[in-house]
Amino acid sequence: MAYSKMVEKAQKPLKAKVSLLEGEDILTASQFNREQLSVIMNSAAYYEKALAKKKILRDMDGKIMAALFFEPSTRTRLSFETAMHRLGGSVVTVAESAKAQTSSTAKGESLHDSITAVDKYVDIIVVRSPIKGAAEIAANAAEHPVINAGDGAGQHPTQALLDIYTILKEKGTLNGLTIAVVGDLKYGRAPHSLVELLSLYDCNFIFISPKELVMPKDITEKLLSKGLKVEETDNLLKAAEKADVLYITRVQKERFSTAEEYERVKDSYVVDDSIVEKGKGGMLILHPLPRVNEIAVSVDKCPGAAYFRQAGNGVFIRMALLTLITGNLL
Amino acid sequence: MAYSKMVEKAQKPLKAKVSLLEGEDILTASQFNREQLSVIMNSAAYYEKALAKKKILRDMDGKIMAALFFEPSTRTRLSFETAMHRLGGSVVTVAESAKAQTSSTAKGESLHDSITAVDKYVDIIVVRSPIKGAAEIAANAAEHPVINAGDGAGQHPTQALLDIYTILKEKGTLNGLTIAVVGDLKYGRAPHSLVELLSLYDCNFIFISPKELVMPKDITEKLLSKGLKVEETDNLLKAAEKADVLYITRVQKERFSTAEEYERVKDSYVVDDSIVEKGKGGMLILHPLPRVNEIAVSVDKCPGAAYFRQAGNGVFIRMALLTLITGNLL
Amino acid sequence: MAYSKMVEKAQKPLKAKVSLLEGEDILTASQFNREQLSVIMNSAAYYEKALAKKKILRDMDGKIMAALFFEPSTRTRLSFETAMHRLGGSVVTVAESAKAQTSSTAKGESLHDSITAVDKYVDIIVVRSPIKGAAEIAANAAEHPVINAGDGAGQHPTQALLDIYTILKEKGTLNGLTIAVVGDLKYGRAPHSLVELLSLYDCNFIFISPKELVMPKDITEKLLSKGLKVEETDNLLKAAEKADVLYITRVQKERFSTAEEYERVKDSYVVDDSIVEKGKGGMLILHPLPRVNEIAVSVDKCPGAAYFRQAGNGVFIRMALLTLITGNLL
Repeated sequence: MAYSKMVEKAQKPLKAKVSLLEGEDILTASQFNREQLSVIMNSAAYYEKALAKKKILRDMDGKIMAALFFEPSTRTRLSFETAMHRLGGSVVTVAESAKAQTSSTAKGESLHDSITAVDKYVDIIVVRSPIKGAAEIAANAAEHPVINAGDGAGQHPTQALLDIYTILKEKGTLNGLTIAVVGDLKYGRAPHSLVELLSLYDCNFIFISPKELVMPKDITEKLLSKGLKVEETDNLLKAAEKADVLYITRVQKERFSTAEEYERVKDSYVVDDSIVEKGKGGMLILHPLPRVNEIAVSVDKCPGAAYFRQAGNGVFIRMALLTLITGNLL
Repeated sequence: MAYSKMVEKAQKPLKAKVSLLEGEDILTASQFNREQLSVIMNSAAYYEKALAKKKILRDMDGKIMAALFFEPSTRTRLSFETAMHRLGGSVVTVAESAKAQTSSTAKGESLHDSITAVDKYVDIIVVRSPIKGAAEIAANAAEHPVINAGDGAGQHPTQALLDIYTILKEKGTLNGLTIAVVGDLKYGRAPHSLVELLSLYDCNFIFISPKELVMPKDITEKLLSKGLKVEETDNLLKAAEKADVLYITRVQKERFSTAEEYERVKDSYVVDDSIVEKGKGGMLILHPLPRVNEIAVSVDKCPGAAYFRQAGNGVFIRMALLTLITGNLL
Repeated sequence: MAYSKMVEKAQKPLKAKVSLLEGEDILTASQFNREQLSVIMNSAAYYEKALAKKKILRDMDGKIMAALFFEPSTRTRLSFETAMHRLGGSVVTVAESAKAQTSSTAKGESLHDSITAVDKYVDIIVVRSPIKGAAEIAANAAEHPVINAGDGAGQHPTQALLDIYTILKEKGTLNGLTIAVVGDLKYGRAPHSLVELLSLYDCNFIFISPKELVMPKDITEKLLSKGLKVEETDNLLKAAEKADVLYITRVQKERFSTAEEYERVKDSYVVDDSIVEKGKGGMLILHPLPRVNEIAVSVDKCPGAAYFRQAGNGVFIRMALLTLITGNLL
């Protein structure tokens, strides 16, 4: 992949801009305005450029981040930890397994109490929980800034930020694009947050899903009320022919009332070479990962297959957030 | 909370004083004399002041601490790790869950062998184990200093040190105070160690517990033989009226022979607003955490509710210990 | 133990030598030639000397190592992490327990995808897996160098490297030695890799095992074809009388068809004081650890009992590998 022009031109954001995020918690994708998003994107590009030039950064020197992962999410956790280390900061980690309880939650302690104590130790808290609303409880308990790294069926705002950073970098703009979102649009946290952010720009949407898993009405209506175009279909190929961006998510078996129903539809939402071939030229393929079989492995080598680059972008976005909300973008 | 006078006046301890702890293991609350305690308290205050002034410390630069937590204890582990990072040091961690065995103990290796090997890697070892006596085994195996972070029914000396640091900071003295200790006084590791340390000062004690869980005779007799006053009661309110410090611990259901017995007494040992209201003016409320329901959440906002500040003090105490015993308080 | 002459004389390897390993993955013991081994040993000694002189190194400043341990191996993991910290680098860790799945493998993600994503974050990847071939999959997925920290029945090359480093340091040479290898020689990953490396030097071998667990024919034949002497026996004592190095490994109950068979042989392969007494003068005793009962605890105090020093040497070998393959030996 060519070194993106956006990254090449990236400059340190102006002080006045940086302060737009200082002291904020990052809880939902809906909390941002376009000016804040612009600062975050610029800061991410600024850090990406610095790392590409092998700069050793010390913006978070002497600072400590708590990574409290009350459910497993290796990629997200390592991405946050990497971001903190790349900034010269330190990390303390709770990484619970799906089955075991390694933390004091095993002793019946409330999340509020846990966070209140850890908040005395560290400078910033990243929290991941299987429970919706956990990040907000954490933010209320903590005096230091809190970042939501996913709270169950709730939000995962840093995923949405890295998604739009990837689109911006690879397409050069967030306006005038046709964004096709595929998979479980009813329950999918990633599609909801992505669409929320993109609704601040001038995009057209195509939503592709089995009928059991269509995008909730309130979301499509909100988009329409903003004057954005929305198309709903269950035909992936037709959507691909028009899509500048194809955002894939998983369709989980558990969402269907019968196994037959699942078997019937599952292959309709797999991106393979024929979809790429017949899809729009330069189509960008994104996926929040982990993929199971929604994208054929053979697609990985296509120039538009950006899902692993997308994962890598998470580090730059998280570096930006860590320094912006703690006021340490130096 | 106002910035404590003690912290404000804190100076780096004199070289001669610092060397009082060098090379020592920290295994029990009973190992300290008053001069050593004084050095630890001063050093903790010195570090607290440095951090409050945003100083970036490098006292443990290039040093590595092993945090070997063979049972979960998130708060204690993160507090130690934070302390090491705040000093510019590095950390390697074993954090076992309650149910899973992630370490080589799963292969049948003895604790002695594990520690002997890890001792070749690092500069200081912090060990937490569900087994009484584990810290002493570790100290015998290791050439580097070992800190006991809790060994089952045994000791948890750094908890006791942060407890008295909190009292000293908030009350300005450790003498002339009436200390009320509430809860499971028979089995409670925290109450035993706290009383052990405070017995070096001129304190009066009130022990409040159900009759099944009274303080062991040998402890009360030792206090009496030193000329300290001891009162035993099952009436929390009466104790609160006289207490300068109310130290709460949990009464666990499993300690009672019948569920009825537990149900009968459990509410007698809960600190709520009425206890605070009727309690002595300026009464300090402490708890080693995690709390389950021994303190009503509404109490958290009282000025005397110091249990979260107490948790935060753990970092300063552990910074002091890490540098004192390795000879790195610079 | 006296400070080894080899370490005392260690110098930084010449630039031309250092580049022999740059960009390489470390996957098997068989990948090295003698010149590469010589660079690794020299570099390890160079780092050992630097640490003995309390130098604070920054060779990996700003670099991040991922320690991906998909099965527990505390000693190996902490050794790698310590090595990285001693070089001034940072570490992100996945430490799965034997029973729990804490990583995204729980979501059905392929190892290839996991590594491809993590490779975007970090500068070097260390991977441990219960599955043979996992390290090679990782190396194919990653652009950054990968080190195999053990892949099931496959390879554990850094163990073999630290084994021969220990022999070289303690015996002063790798030539002209009689190496006795004891235990499960059929399945043992450590014996196979050790013999592989030593076959590059001029050594004689004695293989001691129950008949069920003899060294595979292809290995002994390869040694013989190189003109090296090989003796096979089930008599530990006779072997010890001639051995310069006694390398012990565990005989696992599960390897035997009947419990009686195991009971019959197990005590024949235990090194105790009488073996040490009757063994060759200056005999070096090694063990990859963890030991269960293959070596009596009373042997630990013998001058030749080098297994804990051997564990400590793992840090120097891993420091050497980390900097050599990333081109950061400064």
